[in-house]
Amino acid sequence: MAQTVVSPSADPTIESEKIWAHSGDSHAMEPEDIWTSRLPKRLADRAPRTERGEKYEIIYVDGKRMSRQLNDFMDAMRPPGFRDLDIRLQDLEQEGVRCQLAFPSSGFWSVNVEDPELARAVAHAWNEWAKDDFMGHQNRIFTPAIVPLVDVADAVTELEWARENGFQSIFLPCTMPAERDWGLELWNPLWEAAAANDVVLAYHIGTGGENVVYRGPGGAVVNYMETTYPGMRVVSHLVASGALDRHPNLKMLVAEGGAGWVPAIGDRMDEAYRQHGMFVRPRLDRLPSEIVRAQVYTSFQHDISAVQVIEDTNYWNVMWGDDYPHLEGTYGHTQQTLHDIFDTVDPKIKDRVLRGTFEELFDVPATEELSLRTS
Amino acid sequence: MAQTVVSPSADPTIESEKIWAHSGDSHAMEPEDIWTSRLPKRLADRAPRTERGEKYEIIYVDGKRMSRQLNDFMDAMRPPGFRDLDIRLQDLEQEGVRCQLAFPSSGFWSVNVEDPELARAVAHAWNEWAKDDFMGHQNRIFTPAIVPLVDVADAVTELEWARENGFQSIFLPCTMPAERDWGLELWNPLWEAAAANDVVLAYHIGTGGENVVYRGPGGAVVNYMETTYPGMRVVSHLVASGALDRHPNLKMLVAEGGAGWVPAIGDRMDEAYRQHGMFVRPRLDRLPSEIVRAQVYTSFQHDISAVQVIEDTNYWNVMWGDDYPHLEGTYGHTQQTLHDIFDTVDPKIKDRVLRGTFEELFDVPATEELSLRTS
Repeated sequence: MAQTVVSPSADPTIESEKIWAHSGDSHAMEPEDIWTSRLPKRLADRAPRTERGEKYEIIYVDGKRMSRQLNDFMDAMRPPGFRDLDIRLQDLEQEGVRCQLAFPSSGFWSVNVEDPELARAVAHAWNEWAKDDFMGHQNRIFTPAIVPLVDVADAVTELEWARENGFQSIFLPCTMPAERDWGLELWNPLWEAAAANDVVLAYHIGTGGENVVYRGPGGAVVNYMETTYPGMRVVSHLVASGALDRHPNLKMLVAEGGAGWVPAIGDRMDEAYRQHGMFVRPRLDRLPSEIVRAQVYTSFQHDISAVQVIEDTNYWNVMWGDDYPHLEGTYGHTQQTLHDIFDTVDPKIKDRVLRGTFEELFDVPATEELSLRTS
Repeated sequence: MAQTVVSPSADPTIESEKIWAHSGDSHAMEPEDIWTSRLPKRLADRAPRTERGEKYEIIYVDGKRMSRQLNDFMDAMRPPGFRDLDIRLQDLEQEGVRCQLAFPSSGFWSVNVEDPELARAVAHAWNEWAKDDFMGHQNRIFTPAIVPLVDVADAVTELEWARENGFQSIFLPCTMPAERDWGLELWNPLWEAAAANDVVLAYHIGTGGENVVYRGPGGAVVNYMETTYPGMRVVSHLVASGALDRHPNLKMLVAEGGAGWVPAIGDRMDEAYRQHGMFVRPRLDRLPSEIVRAQVYTSFQHDISAVQVIEDTNYWNVMWGDDYPHLEGTYGHTQQTLHDIFDTVDPKIKDRVLRGTFEELFDVPATEELSLRTS
């Protein structure tokens, strides 16, 4: 499939200098047998698995059956290395990507598990795979850990195991059932553990909820926008509930949802906090807009406004992401995109967005030590 | 109650120069008998009316019964002129507000009417009141017209009547039932009529949907944020459906939801439009981000980021609003707010946000002809 994508070096409009960036939003592609090869049959049978029908992909998880539209075109557009880690490292070199935070793919379905034992098993098997088979062979693509979300005590246990085993973040879905909303007190032990272990809360857009809510004219764009609001919502929950305020070193990332809206929702939360002050519980030690600037990080792919607003709004926690290997991402045009966005941008902002923000959240290898092939 | 609010002139931190602004987001307070005095009993009985209980206000509309929390404190904080048009004009002079676009108050409940005859009657009676009793006595506070939304042909008829009678905009709620979403083709006649008559589509945050969706920690702030997303959603519908693209002179306003997020959602819609291009119907003549900059207007009260992003993102359709007489608004601290936000801002941006954007949407009287009292 490599011949179907535009090679950056073939495009004469790109300036010669290669721009190098970390990606705060990429994806690991798990092998199909990730759970069947690791779990006893009674659990493996209920672990996430997908079947391709004619028009829909059917997902089976924990006795539930879900379907989503099949996008053959999307599959056909995958970059060459989407299933082969050695080719993927070559893709990174070609595109100019140093390190990637790689979210799950089929691992996202783990959030639909309701049985606590299965939730523990699915999360831990995924983390073992990520540690041994994915991160064990190279040092530039690393994943958040999946934590079981049915019982918060299990989530804490898995977080602590993950931290001891080199994970620097945990994946969390933006959307949760109302009775388990992220602002509720039941999650406090998880915030305490994440803060105590210096683990980043890595939320990813489009997870935990329904992604097609409207089928009328403009649906593709409207539904893409619909994935954005839950990212804003989770910020509002973690700010307003006091979770971030009580743990000033706790950091959250909302990946893939853009970044330019953060100052606006910071101000809007301030307005509610101040103007509706008599209804506000809990009181916070800092204004929402201050908490956002200190502890909320966001990633974007193509949005030039994400970069334009940084200096004037003093919101610096913006990082770029390639969304590899997804269609919303920049594979095949990464250099074009980075030059389009950054060629006229102040180097201070450029360095921050391309590398500094990422390195503030995550330890990365020295450039000369980055893996060029798997070991 | 006037003595309970801070008088701007008493605050020594305010510079002496008074800042004058138009407000793109205020509210008219209708008399309680607005419908009973104008409609035959069989309709008046089903028109919106409210009853104050001990903790909740009960709203009766068209046979439906809704309740919302009573906010005595909010009522107590109303500015002196909230029910008296002469005192209100004095409030405007004191605060430095030239003209106000005044949205309905109890008129908002008109969107809950399901019977077409009642919808026509409720809308038209409200518009008659606004024209004769509200706008007929002064020239600086003007309202959008309410249009009946059960049958689009009725909405078109009322829009045309309203335009002939001096209305420059129509009020529309951000949230609609799914089968009547704003992107659906059923609304095309309304967009055509609004474009043909140069009538602004004036959406107001917090209308048409449920405003309390979360009752956990941080609820006041989270629920305030929840009112923001439907404002973004209606932009996505009118952009992605092609409604704005097909009518380049059609303009929409989203009032009270802030403004700083607009460039970000423009970019995000571009990303969907381009990266998911094979699923996009209809195709548009312009990119979403271009349509937004040409035809989508927004208002904010306190958000400094709304002003900070204008120049660098080239999104100029930002206007200030006082939200008079609401608690989220600036009554009593308007001058302080305007000085805080604008004293260090480029005069070009300041003039645009305080007056230029508003005057691009609405004809206003010459300053020396502004009413100082009712006639």
